[in-house]
Amino acid sequence: MAVADAAARSRIANIELAAEGERRIAWVARHSPVLNRLARERLGDGALRGKRVAVVVHLEAKTAYLTTLLADAGAEVVAAGSNPLSTQDSVCAALVRRGIEVHARHGASPDEFTTDLLDVAEKAPQIVIDDGAELTRRIVEHRPELAVRLEGVTEETTTGVARLRALQDAGLLTFPAIAANNARCKHMFDNPHGTGQTALTAILRLTNLSAAGKRFCVVGYGWVGRGLARRAEGYGGRVTVVELDPVQALRAHMDGYRVAPLAQAVEDADFVVTATGTTAAVTADVFPHLKDRVILANAGHHDREIDVGALGDGVEVRAGVVRHGVDGKRVYVLVDGALVNIAGGDGNPIEIMDLSFSVQALSAHHLASGGVPPGLNAFPEQLDREIAHTKLATLGIELDEPSAAQRQFAAGWST
Amino acid sequence: MAVADAAARSRIANIELAAEGERRIAWVARHSPVLNRLARERLGDGALRGKRVAVVVHLEAKTAYLTTLLADAGAEVVAAGSNPLSTQDSVCAALVRRGIEVHARHGASPDEFTTDLLDVAEKAPQIVIDDGAELTRRIVEHRPELAVRLEGVTEETTTGVARLRALQDAGLLTFPAIAANNARCKHMFDNPHGTGQTALTAILRLTNLSAAGKRFCVVGYGWVGRGLARRAEGYGGRVTVVELDPVQALRAHMDGYRVAPLAQAVEDADFVVTATGTTAAVTADVFPHLKDRVILANAGHHDREIDVGALGDGVEVRAGVVRHGVDGKRVYVLVDGALVNIAGGDGNPIEIMDLSFSVQALSAHHLASGGVPPGLNAFPEQLDREIAHTKLATLGIELDEPSAAQRQFAAGWST
Amino acid sequence: MAVADAAARSRIANIELAAEGERRIAWVARHSPVLNRLARERLGDGALRGKRVAVVVHLEAKTAYLTTLLADAGAEVVAAGSNPLSTQDSVCAALVRRGIEVHARHGASPDEFTTDLLDVAEKAPQIVIDDGAELTRRIVEHRPELAVRLEGVTEETTTGVARLRALQDAGLLTFPAIAANNARCKHMFDNPHGTGQTALTAILRLTNLSAAGKRFCVVGYGWVGRGLARRAEGYGGRVTVVELDPVQALRAHMDGYRVAPLAQAVEDADFVVTATGTTAAVTADVFPHLKDRVILANAGHHDREIDVGALGDGVEVRAGVVRHGVDGKRVYVLVDGALVNIAGGDGNPIEIMDLSFSVQALSAHHLASGGVPPGLNAFPEQLDREIAHTKLATLGIELDEPSAAQRQFAAGWST
Amino acid sequence: MAVADAAARSRIANIELAAEGERRIAWVARHSPVLNRLARERLGDGALRGKRVAVVVHLEAKTAYLTTLLADAGAEVVAAGSNPLSTQDSVCAALVRRGIEVHARHGASPDEFTTDLLDVAEKAPQIVIDDGAELTRRIVEHRPELAVRLEGVTEETTTGVARLRALQDAGLLTFPAIAANNARCKHMFDNPHGTGQTALTAILRLTNLSAAGKRFCVVGYGWVGRGLARRAEGYGGRVTVVELDPVQALRAHMDGYRVAPLAQAVEDADFVVTATGTTAAVTADVFPHLKDRVILANAGHHDREIDVGALGDGVEVRAGVVRHGVDGKRVYVLVDGALVNIAGGDGNPIEIMDLSFSVQALSAHHLASGGVPPGLNAFPEQLDREIAHTKLATLGIELDEPSAAQRQFAAGWST
Repeated sequence: MAVADAAARSRIANIELAAEGERRIAWVARHSPVLNRLARERLGDGALRGKRVAVVVHLEAKTAYLTTLLADAGAEVVAAGSNPLSTQDSVCAALVRRGIEVHARHGASPDEFTTDLLDVAEKAPQIVIDDGAELTRRIVEHRPELAVRLEGVTEETTTGVARLRALQDAGLLTFPAIAANNARCKHMFDNPHGTGQTALTAILRLTNLSAAGKRFCVVGYGWVGRGLARRAEGYGGRVTVVELDPVQALRAHMDGYRVAPLAQAVEDADFVVTATGTTAAVTADVFPHLKDRVILANAGHHDREIDVGALGDGVEVRAGVVRHGVDGKRVYVLVDGALVNIAGGDGNPIEIMDLSFSVQALSAHHLASGGVPPGLNAFPEQLDREIAHTKLATLGIELDEPSAAQRQFAAGWST
Repeated sequence: MAVADAAARSRIANIELAAEGERRIAWVARHSPVLNRLARERLGDGALRGKRVAVVVHLEAKTAYLTTLLADAGAEVVAAGSNPLSTQDSVCAALVRRGIEVHARHGASPDEFTTDLLDVAEKAPQIVIDDGAELTRRIVEHRPELAVRLEGVTEETTTGVARLRALQDAGLLTFPAIAANNARCKHMFDNPHGTGQTALTAILRLTNLSAAGKRFCVVGYGWVGRGLARRAEGYGGRVTVVELDPVQALRAHMDGYRVAPLAQAVEDADFVVTATGTTAAVTADVFPHLKDRVILANAGHHDREIDVGALGDGVEVRAGVVRHGVDGKRVYVLVDGALVNIAGGDGNPIEIMDLSFSVQALSAHHLASGGVPPGLNAFPEQLDREIAHTKLATLGIELDEPSAAQRQFAAGWST
Repeated sequence: MAVADAAARSRIANIELAAEGERRIAWVARHSPVLNRLARERLGDGALRGKRVAVVVHLEAKTAYLTTLLADAGAEVVAAGSNPLSTQDSVCAALVRRGIEVHARHGASPDEFTTDLLDVAEKAPQIVIDDGAELTRRIVEHRPELAVRLEGVTEETTTGVARLRALQDAGLLTFPAIAANNARCKHMFDNPHGTGQTALTAILRLTNLSAAGKRFCVVGYGWVGRGLARRAEGYGGRVTVVELDPVQALRAHMDGYRVAPLAQAVEDADFVVTATGTTAAVTADVFPHLKDRVILANAGHHDREIDVGALGDGVEVRAGVVRHGVDGKRVYVLVDGALVNIAGGDGNPIEIMDLSFSVQALSAHHLASGGVPPGLNAFPEQLDREIAHTKLATLGIELDEPSAAQRQFAAGWST
Repeated sequence: MAVADAAARSRIANIELAAEGERRIAWVARHSPVLNRLARERLGDGALRGKRVAVVVHLEAKTAYLTTLLADAGAEVVAAGSNPLSTQDSVCAALVRRGIEVHARHGASPDEFTTDLLDVAEKAPQIVIDDGAELTRRIVEHRPELAVRLEGVTEETTTGVARLRALQDAGLLTFPAIAANNARCKHMFDNPHGTGQTALTAILRLTNLSAAGKRFCVVGYGWVGRGLARRAEGYGGRVTVVELDPVQALRAHMDGYRVAPLAQAVEDADFVVTATGTTAAVTADVFPHLKDRVILANAGHHDREIDVGALGDGVEVRAGVVRHGVDGKRVYVLVDGALVNIAGGDGNPIEIMDLSFSVQALSAHHLASGGVPPGLNAFPEQLDREIAHTKLATLGIELDEPSAAQRQFAAGWST
């Protein structure tokens, strides 16, 4: 698309920020060896040529780089953010400058955000790269006639996969969808290593407080929670885990953490970090149990895990740190309960998103190649292995193959 | 069964060792809160009464305790070991003294071991608690007419589950089987925490060497390998992982370990520990790459992972440590390549086996209750959760339940 | 001092920034329980009343808070920064608004910085709280007649203590000095926990790169280097240590790290972090051994450890990240080789500096109380214990006392 | 000495066990590269020739190997154990077979033990390698006329050094003594890595219990306690530290452990491990606070830390595990409160003792060379560095030297 066209169709904050956005994207490009190799060897075979692809993922430099690679592969890409707090205006500007249509502004209101998404829906995308099913569910709800024309959705998050499953249970998943989140190359790295690292880093940077000697309450012991707990421990923190599933709770216990119900767990917690992937993890009924001067942060799903609204008005006492008063106690909430690593930092590390977005790129390419049945599909194991092989190759790491004896053993039962 | 009867039918080393066996079993009983509660509340409902149950698992005190609980629940139990090197004669004696038929002796020859298993098969068991499918595959092969009368097999290990799957692929799994190993309450704890702890402990004790400053080559990065690697690191060791699956190999890399093909990985390794669950993990083609004075140990499947035979004759230089000569280098093999934590120690920790054998006990009870279809079945999720709940209850740990908002969120897609 | 007076005598960037500075100081005050208690119970006894105290430490909010407490105790404080890159103008403004004289501006040139320090010297301070002996050595060199009137210097860093020792060896330490850095409550916490946490956090935030799967070269295995190494490992990094002292090098080896000479150590390093406390840790002779795209950062002494000048001109490719070209390779230097946690972040965590500055406050108070002999003195063990006791008390942690039997055992030799 | 002579003068259990003892010593020799190199290059210079050297250290294979090296260097060695529970009879037999006089038997009574030590004193040793000052204090007390002829004592433990210091304070240290324990190559490795590893390993092996999910109370946070705590954490344990020194207590807090007074700390502890180096760490006043079925073990000084006597009679419920009853609770004590890693295992790892005994060998050699003044002396820093250099050389690790710029910086104060 011509730049003027893209600019005319887009709604962004300020095209003049493009240079800074380009600089950010260039840094990402330099540290994305897997995407770079896939772009050279796989994406350009024509499958994506001319396809209308909507990218609705946190719009910072890594997402922007994915977007440019899809455009380079011939797709007609339109991009929006999945959360106004994580949108970086400079990056949006750089995309528009490259001729890509963008509907996103940092700090957009909920109504503006919805408008942006519906405007993307208007483009009648064939392929959707989604986060939290934010676009998909709006298409199903508001533009069902477009849903039937979808050639495929590929979903980034645990929460979004759950929503797709609910759509399927409701008989509404009439198009192909891929649970990209469930790819091993996504959730094994993005969740514990990516979010684990950057959420803790963001919490410490926003507050300038010590992790050593502190008590962390980690709410949710899935892949993200396990990554958080291990890193907090490595920094000298003591961890209490809150988890509803009894086997995962027992796992946390065996991993050396205290396990307790939320109301008990928060009683001595200096930091409470949510990572449940669901909603309403920390709500008003828990507030009376919080310690004076506790820090609340969210590393889970969007801004739904901490009920910040129930805390009432607050005062920003430090950039990104708002003090609320509850029963005479001070409760500090980081970045308004949005994803602390994205709204309070630059999001996941680049090399981790190189893997996650390789899953998304190959998933979109796979959908565009056709043949994926309607309903929720797994990301093909073969592609998962290909991404891992590619990453290992860029690191110079070789692998052995199973020997003949091992292949025979694997196939047999009598020896 | 009367003691005299049991003694007459059994083949064990020495009934006089029963007192020591009883002492060992009593120690286990004291540290098995989950089994104790299940025995009180679940196993005695009559489902197991009169059932002929074969227990073919490493015959030391924990297995013996499971055996006695099944007998107390009314089953006619016959026991054999799954490996002659792990059989404890005192424990066998104690079982016979309690009136349970046993066919096992420590250090039995391969032929004697086979005879013991076939003698157990002769009892026409209805339920088999198996390890490595050692009894099941012999029944299928040698006594197919008994296979059709099996009411169910419940299998303890990764390797055994793979064999059952191969049997199924060959159309020979005509009876119900449960992949007990795949229960979360088994492989999430038994493999990393149980084997991880006891294999490393046994290696260090057998050799009296330091872990700090040493290079460990961990072959296989499944649940066992991950447990081993983390513990070796916690002890000041440096770990190189060998893994054939590219995603698991990448996981090892991201977890902070060096990843390399076996021939490279062993070049500077002080300890090489196998945990692949398959066969022929360390074979003659690798020997030239070993370092002088390397220690080889196996934490995986029986004694098949290290090709000890190819190392030629050796000299025992310390109890459980045999020196072999290869190309002028000294190669030390622990406990002849058998499972180092079992043949070189007392096997998994009691509380871990309390969970694993709770799976086996409930699995056997579930099979005895009928209604499980032929073929390979998952361990029921509900029972898995029940075991975890019971364990947490014995620890005094309570769990929250999902809130109404969370249940609604989990079921929905539009909010 | 009246605000107008203070403003007239000070040289700062902009008094209008005072509100933001106040907000930052308020956040520090809230997380400094030990200083708060000492201020209430110890500092106000009159010993500091009317004393001219120079504070020459990185001038951000924590130092500012210390400065205000000394002023509240009656001292006539004059403050300067110890490094222009770490000076925060808003904080300087807030101090002036409180009537404290300040000579510091962010980004001052070397000449301006020297002028600021000499202007502070002009005030003829009686007590100096110094960092790197920056003020002390200038007084000795340029104004020896003021040196003889010094009632005491208390020094914050390893490097500064080494300089004081060199002064003493040269016969120039004619006044009392206290090695505050050597207090256990300083170097046991500030160095490994404070700098360890914030340096790693700053490196990851400045680059948005992953620690997991990366190779870190840690140059220097003192208290800071050990803190860095452990945290990098906890984040999934692999660490190689460079250390000149053979016993410390062996310690790194036993702690599970690879140990190598610098030229070897950097060959596969993704991150090289200096923590030697000396100068010229990474110089031109090492550049040929660096990997393409290596990141260099300094967590040690000021900006002397990496010879950035020898890298030639660079291009800022991301805020705080400058790319240099060496032999066709890209070498990225963070914050120009200045202390990465201070110049690239907010410096040490507040609670850690609460301990370090409690040492400084009690050290200054101790000097002001008189009786400390000329030369380099240890921080009194009794005060060290008092600070730890105070911290533990604010955490609600009680300690046992030695029993009579233990006191007798400690004193005896025959039982 | 001729074998017949040695046998005639010795008092050991059974000379027939010599072959097994030789096998054990040979394994040690193979893993002691530092001692082997020192024996070749340093010990044989004649300084030790003809010197009467008493070795009174836990008499198992590593001590025996040190003893043989001293004899090979020309010394007239006489050996005794420092604790009857750690004496290995086979090793004693092997020493006698090599012509070395030995006074030690496993399980000797206190009276027999004292007689053995006094018999060693009768030999009028010139050099004493001591553990806990067991021989030295008896010589001072019972044979003061021999004390004046001592050319030197070199002491292995924290406790022994404290006793020597008490002797010095009492004016009784009239001969040269070296605090070998305080050598960095001893306490930095032996205490945390050696005892840390083997004490935890022994506890887990003796009990066959899980570390994962367990609460460890570590009493004493010195070098041993820190090693224990870190390893227990690495095995999935949760640690509470008891420590009397407030700064060390704060360090434990910052390292991520709970800190509490003993009576609180034991309340939920599954394992209580003492590592105080003093006496009476766990006494009758604490028993009411213990949890039912707690395991007590000692990793500190001999068998003085747990007041086992106050627990009354017990029943051995498993080898090395004795059950006592206290207030209706079961309290299990490992190896009667003796050093759990020595009495319940083979003691420290060989390579760790290779360092510790290199300190002892060079210390004895240094004393034998003359020139060490009476009183308590530090182990010479130069020898400490030499041992570390030797160890690193055997590992193939090279070190850099300080550059000219760094040497100049270290010596200066004005740059």
